[in-house]
Amino acid sequence: MAYRATARTEARRAEVRERILRSARALVGERGFAGVSMLALARGAGIATGTLYRYFPSKTDLCVELFRLATRREVEAVRAAMAAPGVATAKLARGVEMYGERALRSGRLAYALIAEPLAPELETERLRYRATWREIWAAVIAAGVDAGELPPQPVAFTAAAIVGALAEAVVPSPEVPHSDVTLSSRARIEASVNFILNAVNGNYGVEHGQS
Amino acid sequence: MAYRATARTEARRAEVRERILRSARALVGERGFAGVSMLALARGAGIATGTLYRYFPSKTDLCVELFRLATRREVEAVRAAMAAPGVATAKLARGVEMYGERALRSGRLAYALIAEPLAPELETERLRYRATWREIWAAVIAAGVDAGELPPQPVAFTAAAIVGALAEAVVPSPEVPHSDVTLSSRARIEASVNFILNAVNGNYGVEHGQS
Repeated sequence: MAYRATARTEARRAEVRERILRSARALVGERGFAGVSMLALARGAGIATGTLYRYFPSKTDLCVELFRLATRREVEAVRAAMAAPGVATAKLARGVEMYGERALRSGRLAYALIAEPLAPELETERLRYRATWREIWAAVIAAGVDAGELPPQPVAFTAAAIVGALAEAVVPSPEVPHSDVTLSSRARIEASVNFILNAVNGNYGVEHGQS
Repeated sequence: MAYRATARTEARRAEVRERILRSARALVGERGFAGVSMLALARGAGIATGTLYRYFPSKTDLCVELFRLATRREVEAVRAAMAAPGVATAKLARGVEMYGERALRSGRLAYALIAEPLAPELETERLRYRATWREIWAAVIAAGVDAGELPPQPVAFTAAAIVGALAEAVVPSPEVPHSDVTLSSRARIEASVNFILNAVNGNYGVEHGQS
């Protein structure tokens, strides 16, 4: 009896927790992390504020958990897109496309993850997130260089530049709109793929005595 | 007499203000904005804390002023490097080189301006700063496209991608060092120029049916 009661309680707890995180994801997607309040979260999840605090002791704890969940999904989707066989440039194109499609579909969530000014605890998560992206792009580029599909290059540098280019150019800031807001999502994704494939492929500097 | 006294007072005020800002610049260059305190600033400028507050009512006011001053200098140096005649790619190479040289010479100051997590008032300054960089790169690229020196491209998008690539790759974060910390400053600047010239010049996507 005691065991079954515990199992039921556990299942119930997991369900409420899931509901809270879904509500948080929706809120962040609308207003960014800055627009999240414990009151709005409790309302969105259909629970009392006191109950919410029993699941997450603070807004920051909840946001850190949400940040981890959301970024893990992005990373997994891009990794999966690049796992299928192909040359490095094809993998890179698929990965950047997946990144762009998901970012542009997620509304304000992508901006919140990538660029919204955050509390220090979340900034730490974001540094980890950007480091993960650097590793992902670096792995593909390094394999391409090893296979002779890409010219030799400082791989870690290239990977960091890709992380920065995607973070700044794919998702416009809602506060300071880019002058290119008229670019459609499709055009924006194509521009990302072109920019990055050119950057990793070219030998312009070498040709023109820049290096 | 009254006039001369006022002129002397003004000159004295300007001198103290200048000294405070120099002290602030040195502090940020060592510890970032997070390491700045009114006490340390007053000590650095050789004045009492009370006097410091008469010049800058808060640490944030002072940091905003410093942010503006420091970024204006960066922007002017890069603009000047690109003002001399030349084709778009040569200007771009000169501009990126100047950006990289100054950033890598300034120690932690460049990281503080570009990427250190900041108070919201400073984040607003940074958004303006990044918008200014986008305009600067966009102007050079647009002129190059118009002159037929660069292939047609979504200029505002390209400019934003350059801002992001430079921000992420040129100046490593002191908290989470890149895996490419062994890259020398010279190699890092060359890598930046190559990455960006390739990105704006190439037609890889078009050639390979990516666009």
